[in-house]
Amino acid sequence: MKTTTESLQLTGFEEILEDRELTVSSADYSLLTDLYQLTMAACYVGEGLDGRVASFELFARRLPEGFGYAIAMGLAQVLDYLEKFRFSPAQIQALQSTGIFAGAPEQFWTLLATARFTGDVWAVPEGTAVFANEPLLRIEAPLWQAQLVETYLLNAINYQTLIATRAARLRDVAGPEAKLLEFGTRRAFGPQAAVWAARAALAAGFDGTSNVLAALKLGRKPVGTIAHALVMAVAALEGSENQAFAAFHRYFPGAPLLIDTYDTVAAARMLADRVNSGEMQLEGVRLDSGDLAVLSREVRSILPGVPIFASGDLDDREIAKLKSSGACIDGYGLGTKLVSGSPVNGVYKLVEIDGIPVMKEASGKVTYPGRKQIFRHIENGQILGDCLALSGENIKNCDSIPLMKLVVKDGKRVQNEESLDDIAKRTAASVASLRPETRQLDNPISPQVEISPDLQSLTQKTKKSH
Amino acid sequence: MKTTTESLQLTGFEEILEDRELTVSSADYSLLTDLYQLTMAACYVGEGLDGRVASFELFARRLPEGFGYAIAMGLAQVLDYLEKFRFSPAQIQALQSTGIFAGAPEQFWTLLATARFTGDVWAVPEGTAVFANEPLLRIEAPLWQAQLVETYLLNAINYQTLIATRAARLRDVAGPEAKLLEFGTRRAFGPQAAVWAARAALAAGFDGTSNVLAALKLGRKPVGTIAHALVMAVAALEGSENQAFAAFHRYFPGAPLLIDTYDTVAAARMLADRVNSGEMQLEGVRLDSGDLAVLSREVRSILPGVPIFASGDLDDREIAKLKSSGACIDGYGLGTKLVSGSPVNGVYKLVEIDGIPVMKEASGKVTYPGRKQIFRHIENGQILGDCLALSGENIKNCDSIPLMKLVVKDGKRVQNEESLDDIAKRTAASVASLRPETRQLDNPISPQVEISPDLQSLTQKTKKSH
Repeated sequence: MKTTTESLQLTGFEEILEDRELTVSSADYSLLTDLYQLTMAACYVGEGLDGRVASFELFARRLPEGFGYAIAMGLAQVLDYLEKFRFSPAQIQALQSTGIFAGAPEQFWTLLATARFTGDVWAVPEGTAVFANEPLLRIEAPLWQAQLVETYLLNAINYQTLIATRAARLRDVAGPEAKLLEFGTRRAFGPQAAVWAARAALAAGFDGTSNVLAALKLGRKPVGTIAHALVMAVAALEGSENQAFAAFHRYFPGAPLLIDTYDTVAAARMLADRVNSGEMQLEGVRLDSGDLAVLSREVRSILPGVPIFASGDLDDREIAKLKSSGACIDGYGLGTKLVSGSPVNGVYKLVEIDGIPVMKEASGKVTYPGRKQIFRHIENGQILGDCLALSGENIKNCDSIPLMKLVVKDGKRVQNEESLDDIAKRTAASVASLRPETRQLDNPISPQVEISPDLQSLTQKTKKSH
Repeated sequence: MKTTTESLQLTGFEEILEDRELTVSSADYSLLTDLYQLTMAACYVGEGLDGRVASFELFARRLPEGFGYAIAMGLAQVLDYLEKFRFSPAQIQALQSTGIFAGAPEQFWTLLATARFTGDVWAVPEGTAVFANEPLLRIEAPLWQAQLVETYLLNAINYQTLIATRAARLRDVAGPEAKLLEFGTRRAFGPQAAVWAARAALAAGFDGTSNVLAALKLGRKPVGTIAHALVMAVAALEGSENQAFAAFHRYFPGAPLLIDTYDTVAAARMLADRVNSGEMQLEGVRLDSGDLAVLSREVRSILPGVPIFASGDLDDREIAKLKSSGACIDGYGLGTKLVSGSPVNGVYKLVEIDGIPVMKEASGKVTYPGRKQIFRHIENGQILGDCLALSGENIKNCDSIPLMKLVVKDGKRVQNEESLDDIAKRTAASVASLRPETRQLDNPISPQVEISPDLQSLTQKTKKSH
């Protein structure tokens, strides 16, 4: 078998290679795609099919494991991407220099050189709860465009939806009063993942992030306490943990202190002495190890009125356990288990081409054909169930609300950008509309998603056509 | 409890905010940190401790779940980061405008304005197998610098080490002849994670990546086949799957075709007719669903001599199963389970300050004090065990090889950049040096990591000092 992966001698596109840290700028995004998107686009051009109008829908066949719902997130990044979608001469030259496109039609290059996204986008607003098989968005565009954007769209929506889903449930479990802080940068999958995780967490109800860059980009104040290193360093150089606390407090009197480096209870007592003598006003302490339920109660009794933050591999289940065991914790730092783990397995499937509904019939991966709409039946603020229907279909239940909105028309946005606060409000309302059985941590049950009569019959008809 | 996360009115640093897609450039990296690194640095300055020489070591307390070893990766990005480490006037202004640093000493800003990394770095070369508690790198630098770089260092090393570890075991399981292709971009955690995953996978023995940007940045030819969408679109518009194959083959005769959209065996027969009639030369087929072992054997009998690629939620365990069930598969596309999942939980701990060894004693999170070296005992090409010792310690066993090398001295690199091919060779050799019990998928057992006598006594001494 011949290797297809020999090294390349690439010339003339130093701008792509200049950054040895392998960062990715938005100008790089047109190449941030799987090779086959480009080769398929070239094939469409060659066959004269590139301009046919295609509809692709993005959805997840299964919800993230252990979840009864998902919170849609990442649309803002998708819309920015579509708005800026183009290929630079250097990028085109780089593609040509790979030799892969030697047999591609010449018009392919003309198309790339003038590439813009000119289609429509229908999408569920960020912060909306969705269930398995419900489209988070649909692209209706010339086939080659709709094809090329697949990889980025999945990348952006899959990750942010994962973080938002977890963040929303963390908020639900921790309660509205708890402070939820995103501390995951060191465990996030690269710098950009850290920033996207911060965005999605804030948009799904978190109060802050320790990531300075993310906070600044999102117009928020970054948050944080201290690390064990400071306590260890100052204690080693100046003699004691107490001196470390005093030193940090001198410059940052509002920041919570980390008190578990050596002996949590002893540290709390030491601080209590200074608080009681009026020497120090303490805005909070953080516990990062040990039995948090027991320690937090002890610390509360020693330092009444001082907010207690907890961190250390926490997740929703751990927080629920802490709460039920009477822990005295006012805020949580969430890191590893918020920003990493199994992904949302969103897929992006062709559902209609040139007015012809299509579906994939590969074993275990069947898709529903046609352009769809989600109708949500809400009564007294509670979701009773959804109906997945064809987009033009007349759904009997007149109380049902269509969830997918037109957000881009002919390549132009038709809605204003939303603030993180607005998205966070929608997330909270969305979660509140779910029944307890959907929100619970153990074996959550999604509401029923009914398949409309027209969609059922279209599925039968399309399947039989092969 | 007062909220610490109100929105900010930030001015004067539009360059940080200009990119609404939340991309991260290397110029942003100094702010890609947890807030506390900056507040602690300010505290060190105020206390006059910023210049004390600190040694921090980066290691994982546990290996990734189910692994008997980890493959160190990400050092190249760390070294680039350290080389470029600085703060722009706009970044400093942005920090000031948060109000958080109102009590910070004035010299802190001078220090940031002239910030450079001036310390030493000791590190295990990329592609080396390491075990729990073994340092992947050590920073020896003025305290404030060593502190500030923590977040990025962990971010870079944790993720790439995870991918490299998985990629190395996939190569070990699949065998040296199998093609291993990285297909994970759509499930990676943001665009940059996709590019880093591609790098780490290639450096740990993969043959190619479908990510065009990553391939070009790494000087490789991107790889790929076709998607179901092409088959569905062309079949709907031109009448049949067969026409879809013919169309794609016209422009990309060397690319494998995806044959499971409708009926895998029927598609293989259709292609066999064209191959046998001399109409088509087929370079490969891809199966993405169904019983891959059964289907691949059937397809091999219908299309003898045509390479068969498999994809669809594969991992090392699945490949082992396919191989043991006699599947006829020449190459694997690895995506979701390569690029996402539980992280490497690397930590970065202060081990010495101003010549004084220190250790963290928090419950369950105890660290070993002092600057260390890993001595590896190899006999007949097999690792017998490691010894974690103090860096200056005289280890009795004279066959032992010290693994950590000086890679940066006084802020300057002292080694040339390594090619991905060289790192891949080291990875292969490193895996080959492990015993079967360390490489096995079920309950792998790491070699013994002995703690040297001097390190044991230093640990006792340091612990007692509190």
